[in-house]
Amino acid sequence: MSEGVEWALHSCLNLSWLPPGQAIPTAKLAAFYSLPAAYLNKQLQALGRAGIVSSISGPRGGFQLARNPEHITLLDVVVAIEGPDEAFRCDQLLKQGPGADPDVDYRQACLISQAMRRADLAWRRTLAEQTLADLKTDVERQYPASESNTLNRFAALRA
Amino acid sequence: MSEGVEWALHSCLNLSWLPPGQAIPTAKLAAFYSLPAAYLNKQLQALGRAGIVSSISGPRGGFQLARNPEHITLLDVVVAIEGPDEAFRCDQLLKQGPGADPDVDYRQACLISQAMRRADLAWRRTLAEQTLADLKTDVERQYPASESNTLNRFAALRA
Repeated sequence: MSEGVEWALHSCLNLSWLPPGQAIPTAKLAAFYSLPAAYLNKQLQALGRAGIVSSISGPRGGFQLARNPEHITLLDVVVAIEGPDEAFRCDQLLKQGPGADPDVDYRQACLISQAMRRADLAWRRTLAEQTLADLKTDVERQYPASESNTLNRFAALRA
Repeated sequence: MSEGVEWALHSCLNLSWLPPGQAIPTAKLAAFYSLPAAYLNKQLQALGRAGIVSSISGPRGGFQLARNPEHITLLDVVVAIEGPDEAFRCDQLLKQGPGADPDVDYRQACLISQAMRRADLAWRRTLAEQTLADLKTDVERQYPASESNTLNRFAALRA
């Protein structure tokens, strides 16, 4: 998995602390963790295409969450950045074996492929069960200064 | 995940049908699915280092399972080929943020890292719950000719 997922998750969490209607430019989001702005922007564009963030133009423009953190799961963010492919890609090896039937889709028929898919689904399910709102709540409970630290940092970067 | 995992899983399943004590050379295992022998051999060496297969030298030499299929999980095979790393690699982005403590291990402290680890553990658990013996039983039930087809193919390749 690319580092873009880590950047996207941290950025979404930081965006979740913005007051309603406020947006942050990519440069400030990137400066928060000293990330390269151009590459973080690619992740933000991908989040935008997935409807997770939206951009506002103008002098107070930038990115904000496009929907409520309760409606953004960790799986949404991972799929936005990494695409929908499964970790195990079945190349249908059975098609190259004896007695192969060219009309059979071995991604469906092969029990190895199914076994690997079970694990992938367990991974996806766990990510889908955790929303950005859950994460925000957990962080606020365990590190109560996070929200104000984040907003202060954004304000300082804005100065 | 590399195609080596798919090759290793299919090869382990084929090895599970060999009569006790019998071994198959890499070239025959590779020819089964028209795979490049040199690269399949790398996977078999990795499986050997993990104690999943063992090699026998001599004219009837080759690879065989090193332990009972009940004691080989799909996770064992995946980790043998791919290594023990998690899919999500936490780069400790918080170390680059405001108020970072250089003495904190953010792979432990960061709740994003923990959330991603939960999904990784669900994936690993699902793979660890499925043994090669389970897979063999499922395949034999659904495709009863698999065992004899495999052994006939090995015999034909040996001719």
